[in-house]
Amino acid sequence: MSGLRARILRAVEADLQAIEAALVANLTPHLDLVREVAGYILFNGGKRMRPLLLVLSARLCGYRGTYDVVFSSALEYLHAATLLHDDLVDGAATRRRKPAAHRIWGNAIAVLVGDFLLARALSITAATGNPKIVAVLARLTEEMSQGEVHQLQRKGDPALTEEEYFEVIRRKTAVLFETACRVSALLAEAPAAAEEALCAYGLGLGYAFQIADDLLDYTADSARIGKDVGSDLREGKMTLPLIRGLALAGGEDRARMIAMIREPGFTEADFAWLRGRLEESGALAYARRAAETRIAAAKRHLALFPDSPARRTLEDLADYALERTL
Amino acid sequence: MSGLRARILRAVEADLQAIEAALVANLTPHLDLVREVAGYILFNGGKRMRPLLLVLSARLCGYRGTYDVVFSSALEYLHAATLLHDDLVDGAATRRRKPAAHRIWGNAIAVLVGDFLLARALSITAATGNPKIVAVLARLTEEMSQGEVHQLQRKGDPALTEEEYFEVIRRKTAVLFETACRVSALLAEAPAAAEEALCAYGLGLGYAFQIADDLLDYTADSARIGKDVGSDLREGKMTLPLIRGLALAGGEDRARMIAMIREPGFTEADFAWLRGRLEESGALAYARRAAETRIAAAKRHLALFPDSPARRTLEDLADYALERTL
Repeated sequence: MSGLRARILRAVEADLQAIEAALVANLTPHLDLVREVAGYILFNGGKRMRPLLLVLSARLCGYRGTYDVVFSSALEYLHAATLLHDDLVDGAATRRRKPAAHRIWGNAIAVLVGDFLLARALSITAATGNPKIVAVLARLTEEMSQGEVHQLQRKGDPALTEEEYFEVIRRKTAVLFETACRVSALLAEAPAAAEEALCAYGLGLGYAFQIADDLLDYTADSARIGKDVGSDLREGKMTLPLIRGLALAGGEDRARMIAMIREPGFTEADFAWLRGRLEESGALAYARRAAETRIAAAKRHLALFPDSPARRTLEDLADYALERTL
Repeated sequence: MSGLRARILRAVEADLQAIEAALVANLTPHLDLVREVAGYILFNGGKRMRPLLLVLSARLCGYRGTYDVVFSSALEYLHAATLLHDDLVDGAATRRRKPAAHRIWGNAIAVLVGDFLLARALSITAATGNPKIVAVLARLTEEMSQGEVHQLQRKGDPALTEEEYFEVIRRKTAVLFETACRVSALLAEAPAAAEEALCAYGLGLGYAFQIADDLLDYTADSARIGKDVGSDLREGKMTLPLIRGLALAGGEDRARMIAMIREPGFTEADFAWLRGRLEESGALAYARRAAETRIAAAKRHLALFPDSPARRTLEDLADYALERTL
């Protein structure tokens, strides 16, 4: 474990315990099978980034109630619902070193338990009686489902532009991070400037987090990321390293890359060649810089708030998002 | 068209127009594909039972605002979302004489557009700023997803009891009808007694509507119901006519029925035999009586309200649910 990660974990130890307890307490399924499948996806070594963002940014805004932990369950349930549905949509085989839920219980159960988790997220939100926050969460769900449709539509299309890539990851990842920050500002009834600064931080962190994830698929070994390296490419996902690599590649290399995008049956040697080309052409460095730029901007937005343990941990979380890209 | 159906359609002509216009106006998807798939399931000759229930029962409570039509979109989107997901879950081939959406666009799109419709339903609800109604809708979604899981778990299980059957159809159908009535009572800020009477009416109507649907699978011809007769049995769905038929059947007949439940490759002759047995043993009449009892009780609950055109149309809708079983 890196020193940074260890410092973050020390700082949020009590928060993580409260978040885990709330995740168990708020689930309340009627059927054992629902509990089993929801538990499989929820209690699977997730980093709880979204709940932590919510709890820490609420603290940054001076919030002293208890709804932050409650809402953090709602966000994590929503996140788990999208994992269940997206793994099915992507045809993913594994998640965090274990078979994807739809491979164990089938598509039908993955769909329905995802629906249940989504509904739980909204029930929890509704129970707090804050229509603004309900509206934010419902709007988020719309964005996320459409981000996934967009990605699916352009699956395996080498013509996907960087602009489209950023639009897809905004909807499918960054908006959820932004929402975690917005909910805490709404809970704390923070001034508009604080809300906007926190949202900008969350959005930038979300972008960087997804870029890092997409980089890992080309740079890490399989054991580290808990799924097969190259699985994004096998699923036809056009991510930033590849988009940039295509743009930088000359005729023959470009043709070979396009063939790999279109034919998911490529060999390990093909993939090793592609990694080499992305490294040498500077495509990986380009993606790293895209993440760095966003993290630097995200941290600048935190400067609006006075120094505090919560602010320092939010800064650490931003650095941690970057550390994953190395 | 029956005289009853014609009379209902005359009475609700203006309401149906307002409902259709709201369904178009409130959808607001970002992507053309989402509009296309959502439109395919939404504008497909549906009877708009749930929106009509909401609009008519709001009128019964003296509501004079415009949110009833807005919420009626939310309920219909939610219903459409469950149709998309449930057809996938059930492996259904057709709906209303056309291929099921997942057969045209694939499972992934059916899942994601269902998620979008669910999110739209909740966004619309949230936008009206009434947390009670949001809570009712979110709770409904939880119930429905768990009803489907329950049904799926007991698929093809000849031991499913009547009690379980009623619990499944309560969650998957009746609660949505009940919710349509509850939302209108909440909108109109109706007294508790009126809310409870309307909810009891909606719940009873919902039960009867589902029992009628389940009967049609054994009694109608394929052209009338827009899907293959016997498809419930082929999907392993244990419905009331079959549950009762099994209970009434002697040794050999019972064994043959169980074999058909377990082996969806049964022939048309097998199915004709089964229909005959259910008719002769009184199983179909038993299911019809179960629907009749609930409709009679539902109509009695309306007696709390003074006579009015809206009340008469709600009574007609109840009779219409029964007429479908004949």
